[in-house]
Amino acid sequence: MINKNIDFLYLQISDKIGRQIRQQTLKTGKKLPSVRALSQEQGISLSTAFKAYSQLEMEGLIEARPKSGYYVRYSPAKSFTQDPKKTQTTNTEVVTAEDMIARVYHNIAEEGVLKLSIAAPGLSLLPQAKLNKSMVEAIRQSSSSCIHYEDVQGNHNLRKHLASQAFSWGGSISPDDIVTTNGCMEALAFCLRAVTKPGDLIAIESPTYFGIFGLIQSLNLNIVEIPGGPLEGLDLGHLKKVIQAQPIKACLFVPTFSNPLGYCLSNEKKQELVNLLANHDIPLIEDDIYGEMYFGKTRPRTCKSYDKKGLVMLCSSISKSLAPGYRVGWCIPGKFIKQIIQLKFSNSLSSVTITQAAIGHFFETGRYDLHMRKLRKELHTQCLRYIQSIVEYFPPDIKISQPCGGYVLWIELPKSVDAFELFQQAIKQQISIAPGQIFSINGNYTHFIRISFGLPYNSDINKSLKALGGLIYKLTK
Amino acid sequence: MINKNIDFLYLQISDKIGRQIRQQTLKTGKKLPSVRALSQEQGISLSTAFKAYSQLEMEGLIEARPKSGYYVRYSPAKSFTQDPKKTQTTNTEVVTAEDMIARVYHNIAEEGVLKLSIAAPGLSLLPQAKLNKSMVEAIRQSSSSCIHYEDVQGNHNLRKHLASQAFSWGGSISPDDIVTTNGCMEALAFCLRAVTKPGDLIAIESPTYFGIFGLIQSLNLNIVEIPGGPLEGLDLGHLKKVIQAQPIKACLFVPTFSNPLGYCLSNEKKQELVNLLANHDIPLIEDDIYGEMYFGKTRPRTCKSYDKKGLVMLCSSISKSLAPGYRVGWCIPGKFIKQIIQLKFSNSLSSVTITQAAIGHFFETGRYDLHMRKLRKELHTQCLRYIQSIVEYFPPDIKISQPCGGYVLWIELPKSVDAFELFQQAIKQQISIAPGQIFSINGNYTHFIRISFGLPYNSDINKSLKALGGLIYKLTK
Repeated sequence: MINKNIDFLYLQISDKIGRQIRQQTLKTGKKLPSVRALSQEQGISLSTAFKAYSQLEMEGLIEARPKSGYYVRYSPAKSFTQDPKKTQTTNTEVVTAEDMIARVYHNIAEEGVLKLSIAAPGLSLLPQAKLNKSMVEAIRQSSSSCIHYEDVQGNHNLRKHLASQAFSWGGSISPDDIVTTNGCMEALAFCLRAVTKPGDLIAIESPTYFGIFGLIQSLNLNIVEIPGGPLEGLDLGHLKKVIQAQPIKACLFVPTFSNPLGYCLSNEKKQELVNLLANHDIPLIEDDIYGEMYFGKTRPRTCKSYDKKGLVMLCSSISKSLAPGYRVGWCIPGKFIKQIIQLKFSNSLSSVTITQAAIGHFFETGRYDLHMRKLRKELHTQCLRYIQSIVEYFPPDIKISQPCGGYVLWIELPKSVDAFELFQQAIKQQISIAPGQIFSINGNYTHFIRISFGLPYNSDINKSLKALGGLIYKLTK
Repeated sequence: MINKNIDFLYLQISDKIGRQIRQQTLKTGKKLPSVRALSQEQGISLSTAFKAYSQLEMEGLIEARPKSGYYVRYSPAKSFTQDPKKTQTTNTEVVTAEDMIARVYHNIAEEGVLKLSIAAPGLSLLPQAKLNKSMVEAIRQSSSSCIHYEDVQGNHNLRKHLASQAFSWGGSISPDDIVTTNGCMEALAFCLRAVTKPGDLIAIESPTYFGIFGLIQSLNLNIVEIPGGPLEGLDLGHLKKVIQAQPIKACLFVPTFSNPLGYCLSNEKKQELVNLLANHDIPLIEDDIYGEMYFGKTRPRTCKSYDKKGLVMLCSSISKSLAPGYRVGWCIPGKFIKQIIQLKFSNSLSSVTITQAAIGHFFETGRYDLHMRKLRKELHTQCLRYIQSIVEYFPPDIKISQPCGGYVLWIELPKSVDAFELFQQAIKQQISIAPGQIFSINGNYTHFIRISFGLPYNSDINKSLKALGGLIYKLTK
């Protein structure tokens, strides 16, 4: 029951130094103490001191100069590079990412605000009436009107249909391989808890959906960010180096229509990723929540489909495709299934009976496939319309991701625009966007924003994007 | 992020010695090394060695003889005392409590088995038809048919009615003090996570509902068991001593109709408990899931009603009164409300929209009070009928708890009867009971069983209790 985390002392040290660098208590260009001096100063071993510096080097905060030592490299005042993974914060107002998330999503339910900050479909795109029918039918078909406790592992009919659906992403699984959860977030939480203990190091992509940070922090885990780009996706070479240098206990990635970058990792890269992690026996938690929202002809394969050792834990839900409020999610946790069932049993006993039964019925009627074909087509069109307007109204030197699925656009603004400042200006005009800063623990991406194209394109959207463009012009110095 | 748990080294040591005592590698009567010798042997400080022995003493496994030293006291072969809190295991077959729980509850959904092992109402006692009406009405009244994400804190109408209900248990709270959860288990899980970190020590009652052990283990917390009795309830004097001796970080008790003991702590004792913990700034997680199932004239007050410092975190649900499968639970976490909302947001985002809305509607129509009056009356009658049959069919020297609420009877059998053996014999006759062993982490209560009176009394129940009595007679040596 007792966790010995002395291996992670170096992270404490690197955190401390990193903070001093970001606050510029340690100025750019300053020479840092030698590894030996640091070890003596802090009362730590040489290898811990070395690891702390390696960590800071990896974060781009210091650099090693041959035969000279370590120097502070980070410079908040300098211009940004084109590469999103190397940008750093210029935000002089001290607003943490957490504060920003709270401010962006606090009054999200408020009427009148145009929510371009939510990576989800507009309600009008969802099959309300048909879901209601399935709900009523599920009650009718149940001898207890669905008031009984559901099986811990989840509604069997639902699992049966999810197992059939797996065929489309290259999977061959049975209902017994699946555990249902309260949405995808609970699936991710159980998977992380099944394969880590507090203090462990988890690799995630940068930028990453901010909800992942909150989850990982609540589990007292530590994060290593692996850079990704909107075109090439996750940097596997970098991941390889990190795995060799540090005791990564699990990876959590969104390989298909990553949020916010929007890319879909190629089949080759997915296979390579699975093999790399299998060689090191590292579990991969594959967040596949956007996998069904593809614009191409076929459903992209999942990493899970390449999994031979049972190390890939696929997590998903119907929150982005059918009904967010039903909280019907699931995981396919490979060889960790017993731990997941145990965690679910001891932490929430079982999931809601009626919504699982209703979604099971919805699949059964064939309504799911019909609905999804329509939804994908609409999303694709919306995506193109949004891009068209953004190109028209935003300054010419911006860059926009070209997702082939999902719900979001990742936009690089002129370097002088502070995205959080833009958010604050926009919300005054009842437009909510997601500033880039909330997608990294290091306050990176200060001149990036994420815009969701989940709401059907109409004149209001057009007007808002135009207004947003105007604000960006104003903020461009 | 890093947890230093060296303070709990003594628990590791006491665990190790305790195991040797229970396995009788260290025989009863054997003199143990002195505190100084133990400290040298294990490479630990004198105070850690002393704490380890104090822990073992508290567990009743060793005794200190003045001017002589510490001796093994535990004796599996000796006869039991009348006091349940001092009984110890005689089970020679090595079956862990976890194995037993799995065996008792594995096929619980199986048809044909009479489930006297489940502390819940028979489905026929629940208001199915009226809940269906509320479900349909909730869909109708929602502009999105309840497919939208619910507010993280929970459905406002539901929280409004829960706040009104609080009046009956002496509470004065507002909807903003409440956070809804996926049943009571998730509420308990979030409360524990909000006020502890892995390695912390939690006080619970012995015997305690086995689900609590699983939860606490999954959070890597350590347990101290505080004895309780079916009449007097939780031993506050013992709790006081434990708090003075050990760094208890939270208490988790079921003060109203405890499970399995069935007692209701008096108002005076509830107040005393709250004050005691307030003096030491220790949060009390009050599991009030059975609070509404009282047989007397008025709803017992809760510990929460005496809470002045915001340290009491009340947890409950409608799983025992309306619909287990709806998973509508909540907590009223006092000053920890921000942490709870944050944990809920980061670990499951939000709870199911439709079931919360339906229960909100059910309260609104006044159906809840009508239903509960009927349910309480029926449960009281069932309780008395079950006791009557047990007295008739079981051996005369058994003892039965006399609960004034809840769902369960705690029965002390003749000392020679092994409760797990009884379970195994009974399940062959399609009768499922809960053996005493699963209610303690130390394998205590080997000749106790818990029987639920949630199923309406009828000839099947009568026949089964008779058969159970026959088995007990057979097993009595």
